[in-house]
Amino acid sequence: MTACAVVVASIYPAAYADEGMWQPSQLPSLAATLQERGLELVPKKLTELTDWPMDAVVSLGFCSASFVSPDGLVVTNHHCGIGPLQYNSTPQKNLVDDGFLARTKGEELPAAPTQRVYVTEAISDVTTSVKAKLTPQMDGYARYMAIDAAKKQLVQGCEQPGYRCDVYTFNGGDSYRLIKQREIRDVRLVYAPPYGIAQFGGEVDNWMWPRHGGDFLFLRAYVAKDGSSAPYSKDNVPYRPKHWLSVNPKGVEAGDFVMVAGYPGYTNRYRLAEELQEARDKEHPLFIELAQGFSNIVADVGKTKPEVPVKYADIVGTYDNYVKKDQGDLEAFARSNALEVKQAREAALDQWLAQQKPGGSVDAAALRADIGRLRTLVDARTRHRERDITLAMLKRGGLFNATYEIVRLADERQKPDAEREVGYQKRDEARLLANEKKLDRQMDPSVESRKLVYLLQRYVKLPATDHLPSLDKWLDGASDEAAITKKVSALFAGTRLTDTATRVKWLDATPAQIHASDDTWLQWMSALMPDLLTLERETKAFTGEEALLRPRYVQALAAYYAVRGLPIYPDANFTLRVTFGNVKGYEPRDGVINAPFTTAEGIVQKSGAKPFDIPAVELTAIRAKAYDGFASPKLGTLPVNFLSNLDITGGNSGSPTLDKNGRLVGLAFDGEWEGIDGDWLYDPRVFRTIHVDIRYMLWVMHHLGHADNLLEEMHVPVAN
Amino acid sequence: MTACAVVVASIYPAAYADEGMWQPSQLPSLAATLQERGLELVPKKLTELTDWPMDAVVSLGFCSASFVSPDGLVVTNHHCGIGPLQYNSTPQKNLVDDGFLARTKGEELPAAPTQRVYVTEAISDVTTSVKAKLTPQMDGYARYMAIDAAKKQLVQGCEQPGYRCDVYTFNGGDSYRLIKQREIRDVRLVYAPPYGIAQFGGEVDNWMWPRHGGDFLFLRAYVAKDGSSAPYSKDNVPYRPKHWLSVNPKGVEAGDFVMVAGYPGYTNRYRLAEELQEARDKEHPLFIELAQGFSNIVADVGKTKPEVPVKYADIVGTYDNYVKKDQGDLEAFARSNALEVKQAREAALDQWLAQQKPGGSVDAAALRADIGRLRTLVDARTRHRERDITLAMLKRGGLFNATYEIVRLADERQKPDAEREVGYQKRDEARLLANEKKLDRQMDPSVESRKLVYLLQRYVKLPATDHLPSLDKWLDGASDEAAITKKVSALFAGTRLTDTATRVKWLDATPAQIHASDDTWLQWMSALMPDLLTLERETKAFTGEEALLRPRYVQALAAYYAVRGLPIYPDANFTLRVTFGNVKGYEPRDGVINAPFTTAEGIVQKSGAKPFDIPAVELTAIRAKAYDGFASPKLGTLPVNFLSNLDITGGNSGSPTLDKNGRLVGLAFDGEWEGIDGDWLYDPRVFRTIHVDIRYMLWVMHHLGHADNLLEEMHVPVAN
Repeated sequence: MTACAVVVASIYPAAYADEGMWQPSQLPSLAATLQERGLELVPKKLTELTDWPMDAVVSLGFCSASFVSPDGLVVTNHHCGIGPLQYNSTPQKNLVDDGFLARTKGEELPAAPTQRVYVTEAISDVTTSVKAKLTPQMDGYARYMAIDAAKKQLVQGCEQPGYRCDVYTFNGGDSYRLIKQREIRDVRLVYAPPYGIAQFGGEVDNWMWPRHGGDFLFLRAYVAKDGSSAPYSKDNVPYRPKHWLSVNPKGVEAGDFVMVAGYPGYTNRYRLAEELQEARDKEHPLFIELAQGFSNIVADVGKTKPEVPVKYADIVGTYDNYVKKDQGDLEAFARSNALEVKQAREAALDQWLAQQKPGGSVDAAALRADIGRLRTLVDARTRHRERDITLAMLKRGGLFNATYEIVRLADERQKPDAEREVGYQKRDEARLLANEKKLDRQMDPSVESRKLVYLLQRYVKLPATDHLPSLDKWLDGASDEAAITKKVSALFAGTRLTDTATRVKWLDATPAQIHASDDTWLQWMSALMPDLLTLERETKAFTGEEALLRPRYVQALAAYYAVRGLPIYPDANFTLRVTFGNVKGYEPRDGVINAPFTTAEGIVQKSGAKPFDIPAVELTAIRAKAYDGFASPKLGTLPVNFLSNLDITGGNSGSPTLDKNGRLVGLAFDGEWEGIDGDWLYDPRVFRTIHVDIRYMLWVMHHLGHADNLLEEMHVPVAN
Repeated sequence: MTACAVVVASIYPAAYADEGMWQPSQLPSLAATLQERGLELVPKKLTELTDWPMDAVVSLGFCSASFVSPDGLVVTNHHCGIGPLQYNSTPQKNLVDDGFLARTKGEELPAAPTQRVYVTEAISDVTTSVKAKLTPQMDGYARYMAIDAAKKQLVQGCEQPGYRCDVYTFNGGDSYRLIKQREIRDVRLVYAPPYGIAQFGGEVDNWMWPRHGGDFLFLRAYVAKDGSSAPYSKDNVPYRPKHWLSVNPKGVEAGDFVMVAGYPGYTNRYRLAEELQEARDKEHPLFIELAQGFSNIVADVGKTKPEVPVKYADIVGTYDNYVKKDQGDLEAFARSNALEVKQAREAALDQWLAQQKPGGSVDAAALRADIGRLRTLVDARTRHRERDITLAMLKRGGLFNATYEIVRLADERQKPDAEREVGYQKRDEARLLANEKKLDRQMDPSVESRKLVYLLQRYVKLPATDHLPSLDKWLDGASDEAAITKKVSALFAGTRLTDTATRVKWLDATPAQIHASDDTWLQWMSALMPDLLTLERETKAFTGEEALLRPRYVQALAAYYAVRGLPIYPDANFTLRVTFGNVKGYEPRDGVINAPFTTAEGIVQKSGAKPFDIPAVELTAIRAKAYDGFASPKLGTLPVNFLSNLDITGGNSGSPTLDKNGRLVGLAFDGEWEGIDGDWLYDPRVFRTIHVDIRYMLWVMHHLGHADNLLEEMHVPVAN
């Protein structure tokens, strides 16, 4: 306990000085810290979502971006703009590899019709409306359904042409906010550096420092002549944002204030220690094992069928990324003593609650009871984790998912569209059809059947409470590899769903037609479906229950910190957040310092074979130190990437990095290895954000890309 | 050429500020630099080899060490003292793993009878005596033999009981020095930390930073009661050195002056650019290929014979180390542009020589001509490099070497002992016998025959000028794998030399008996021997020729630097040298800094499975920060290892690291990866020496080893 007390004392204040994905509205309460860190703007300026600079920060749905000119010029990460580059590439002209420059607006290329730029125009707290629909008597499932209905109603009342509305849940149900965003539908490609610059280092350098990525790209937002959102038309005109960011071509130096505004996706900062422990000891190791088991199957089948690894490249690549992230988490959990820190924090909170007098401002006894209930809920949930992960992998992709979607869609079609499950509504049907059509390019029956045998062998070893009656009935006692293989072989022998035309035909079938079919896969899925729906309902019930209890934990924490004069921020949920701090290196391990900046000379050091194939023209320019005035006088050379202690996560990619005056000095584009578990716990000693430096961006555009038209549009002076 | 000029300008002065394995006698000429770096002693003090502190620095033959008490206490690296630890270990008590402490002198354990401590007592320049035996008319071989005879004569005239004399060659023949060393033959084990501390990180961390090695060990020198050297006897008494080093328990901090005195082995600093190019483009890649080819054979045979990898563990391990070093060299050559730097230096030298007026103080024309001849000589030599490396691998170890030694010894025995080849004299016979006896434990006929087939397949592809007539005759046209395998199989079918008793018996045979034998291996080796001796003679002729020309290159360089007021140091040759500089980190690559110190906390970070299995008691102590006053106030914790820009190489292991006042502040024990090619070229940006910090040594001894008796002997105050 002495050791724990030390952890609490040393981690808490440090953490909350740098940590935090703040809602803009919270920033005035952090004014002193912002000023101490170096902000020269009035914090209140950052709370106005429809004023500079916040209204210049936009979302691409999955990434963040910002306006950088009055003509709707948008800057984001290159990795957020791969879509428009691929969409405009031809066998003759590979824009992904070669990069692109529109020298005039007329040369700009339309992105795919699905590309969006979302401009947040209003945020309203709808907690009261949502909670008005809830009663204390509701069980978890009823609460889930009531919340779902309330959200749908609010969205319906908000949406209008050219706008998208969504209700965002904060901290699992503590509060709800309705966010209205202008939906810009004509987005065009303006400038991208070549792949060798943008993604220099590729997967090798992913999550790593030292980093030398030129991960930036320019788009432009277009609207109809009347200013309304419209799909692509050659008659559209550039969107005129009310505000945009101005560029500081001098950038920032070590120690300087920086902040990032953007749309971070998900974090687990308010999970209980038990949940972290579960992730560390069960979920991550199990997922790593299953993902590698699946990859081995693909590799093994690939030995005799060379097309197989190509077919499964996407899914194997995705699993590899998850595995790398999970392994990174496990290493980082150990380095940071993450579990002990969480436990110490919870112990401190509980101790504080226990000390509160009854009848005081904090209803400590009720909070403690509810946190206890949350623990019980979480514990009940995690007990089925192995089943859930095994079934999730079974359902993911391949023939299982294709058949599931056929059977599920037939069922959902029986309801009014509004009541159908999300993902199976009318607007989803085109996507479901596309899924069935493209399956051939992503599936091989040998892999599918071996995957099924592999996962069923795991399933039969699960405790009885984790079994599905329908699956057990079908297995009919088969429990070893040979017996399961026999069942699976029969399943594959009696189906024609491996044929695309057959699948497409069945996507239009009714439940009755499916039930009458003699196709073994359809019969099997129909038999399994009731049990799978039961599990889905259990998940919803958990979420509904969690909506009641998770907020109580966060409320208790908020009270605990309020006494210390510290606000707390909600977990990331794809809403606009601000994180601030300083340009700062770190000590990844004893005896080694990761310096805050990398420089152009490091590109020469790394250059070589893919993914380090920097264009020769850049090598020559660096060797000649032809930096055209963009070098940092302090570093004596051209900065490429820099580190800060800012608090970001996935979704923040492409976010503008702003200096003390709100000017653009770079883009956030990645985190680093030692802080990879940051979604769970922000360790101020090693959590860092990696930014591409504005000086490198401008130099690449000017010296290599000859994009002086854009520098001029951003009012960046050029020496020659 | 512009680029080259830049390299010369930027590398030369920087290099010669930090670079240099100086002969003590040279230090007064470097007084200004020594003072600028921070030395507070008078440099002349360091030139007196029989006075403090230089006479406290001793050699173990293969490592360096120093006296640290008036009672002959010696400190060196743990990896230099593995022998005494193994020698005193039993199945019940593993001193290598567990460490050792003698609480009293009576508990000290004798090292093996071959263990030595050498104290340099006199160095005399014998260049004139050696060169008096040489005439300009001598060809290379005659010169080699004349030098060899002159050296033997000088040694004979110097040696007396208890002393060893050797003539050391400087810069290939520029000068010769006769060195007389007291040979202490009773060496005892006093203290060693456990293996997990001493070799923490093992092969994984070898050559690497950050490093956390406790690589130190204490011995004690004993002599007969009358002070003369004597083999172990319980009546012997501790040797009383005239001087010893005193310990500075406060250590040094970043930027402080440090120097190392010791016995560096070999460097290639005065090789020509062509020789570096040869190493880079041919020797290193070829050796790496052959060594890996051999390792593959061992691994392959090991699949069915599990004892085989154990039998070849030593040689495979040695090859692996060479391969790692060679690969490191290749990487480092590329990073440092080593070839270009060498070429630029030579071009600058040549340009300067070309500018010298005839009749001036420098005989520039003759020097240029001789350097040209050196190039021709080196070129002729390197032309046979592939043959030489292939044959060297063939001869190394195994049945080939065992048979070679039988046949060669029989031949050499026909000569008077003094004329026999070094290694085949009377004093070598016991070692040769031991070699034959232990071969069984290090040899497997399948591996031997496959190695032979593998190397002969390489041999047959060599150009005709690289062929040995006797080997070609035996091969009788066999050139593909099948035909060579047939020859080799016959060779193995007709021999009984795979039997130890047979080999031992043949070691006593006369040449006539060997020639009369029907053993296939003996017949084969007898047939090959004349050609092998011809090659040996060619090597000697080269060395004799080099003795004339290599010095000329060094003389030219010396003249070039003399004009610039800079001395030059000779290549390392196992003689006493001093290197000085400062505690200093470096930038291994852009964006990363290797800090000058590692700390105890880093041990906890790395701790885990072997080779990171630090004893639990140390982990506990570090977690409790129980540093007993040995922590650095500046670092706020206990330093473990530190970096300096000192210039060391193999042989320097165990060398004392001295502060500005000549007090002991650590031991040099390794170099690091980015400077691994330092034997060829000292790159001041990345060449660093790794030291174990005196504070870590003392803390380990006191807190973990309870060796307060030794701290007291060294007058180190202990807080508690």
